[in-house]
Amino acid sequence: MRITVCTVCPEFFDSFLSSTMVRRAMDAGAVDIIICDIKEYADGCFRKIDDSPYGGGAGCVMRCEPVVGAIEAVKAPESHVALFAPIGQMYSQADARRFARMQDLVLVCGHYEGFDARIYPYADEIISVGDYILSGGEIAAMAVMDSVIRLFPESLKEESTREESFENGLLEYPQYTRPAEFRGERVPEVLLSGNHEAIRRWRQEESVKLTEKLRPDLLEKRKED
Amino acid sequence: MRITVCTVCPEFFDSFLSSTMVRRAMDAGAVDIIICDIKEYADGCFRKIDDSPYGGGAGCVMRCEPVVGAIEAVKAPESHVALFAPIGQMYSQADARRFARMQDLVLVCGHYEGFDARIYPYADEIISVGDYILSGGEIAAMAVMDSVIRLFPESLKEESTREESFENGLLEYPQYTRPAEFRGERVPEVLLSGNHEAIRRWRQEESVKLTEKLRPDLLEKRKED
Repeated sequence: MRITVCTVCPEFFDSFLSSTMVRRAMDAGAVDIIICDIKEYADGCFRKIDDSPYGGGAGCVMRCEPVVGAIEAVKAPESHVALFAPIGQMYSQADARRFARMQDLVLVCGHYEGFDARIYPYADEIISVGDYILSGGEIAAMAVMDSVIRLFPESLKEESTREESFENGLLEYPQYTRPAEFRGERVPEVLLSGNHEAIRRWRQEESVKLTEKLRPDLLEKRKED
Repeated sequence: MRITVCTVCPEFFDSFLSSTMVRRAMDAGAVDIIICDIKEYADGCFRKIDDSPYGGGAGCVMRCEPVVGAIEAVKAPESHVALFAPIGQMYSQADARRFARMQDLVLVCGHYEGFDARIYPYADEIISVGDYILSGGEIAAMAVMDSVIRLFPESLKEESTREESFENGLLEYPQYTRPAEFRGERVPEVLLSGNHEAIRRWRQEESVKLTEKLRPDLLEKRKED
């Protein structure tokens, strides 16, 4: 899979690109990540990527020309272009799985006050990673790449993506590891029992209980699906 | 404000810490960011930070001792400890504003299969930045720090955080900048009119229309508040 990120802060991805999981996936050939600098597609000596909003107001708006220029330069016929903006549809684990099946994904990051609205039609979809404002789309792009790349078997040392939160529409059951007692708190006895069927049942129950208590909205969504 | 991040991947924050906005806020003394390596609080020669789950299953679970050790080492009496996990409450712009008023925030990042459940009581709150799985809490911590730091007047060159998505419970109206025409698409005439009252009205209407169309859930939430 190829992922191209269009950004005005290419250096922001340095640490991400050299992190263990990403390097493992890239070394294994599971993913190829290209960082495209939007500034290279701005014309004029000053390579101006943003300008004041029409109609007044604080901040700057990203200009059509460099952003659309960057998208068109990196886009292949099979590319799927996703652009980050607070007006986007909420990104979820289902989207991570959908993106992981793609051959070519282009992620477009805004900055500060966001995009000129005439840029939106050049994207196949507009996504938001949460109901909070970020100073740019770069952290959102890392969240999407991380959630997608970790689904490739090449990325993780062990197969550990099967049973976890959201994958089955429920929060994950509580996990415990050694020691069996930490400051007086013991691991639930059933987990030490060796009775696999009892463990499976306990985990399923805890998963439902936890979801009912903390995220009843997930149970509602599960019923609708 | 002081923010301490407990992580097993301290180097993951290098690019973030040297990014423009974060440096500007740190240089101005608005925020101090400390990265604490959880591995330093693991005992034994191997500094083991995780182990297999009790009851079986794939992946590794982060051990109580190094995580609780790191939290207790960095915690001051005024600290607020937030831990990232998919079972957490959904982080929102209201939380960003709440965190920005704190003196001392500690962010605890998990990795892979998450925390031993006995760690949770050592946090003041458990948060999730979205309904998708990340390989670790590091990107979530960056999202939270970015959303908080950009609220400080010292972080942004211009005051541009007032009117935007979520701040008033609505999505932001469409923004436009020069040129007035891009590939045949013109900026809405009202924005070129110079009539401030008409512009204000148009923006308010577009904001409501956009929210009704794309995020009706936000309008519901707004009525409840």
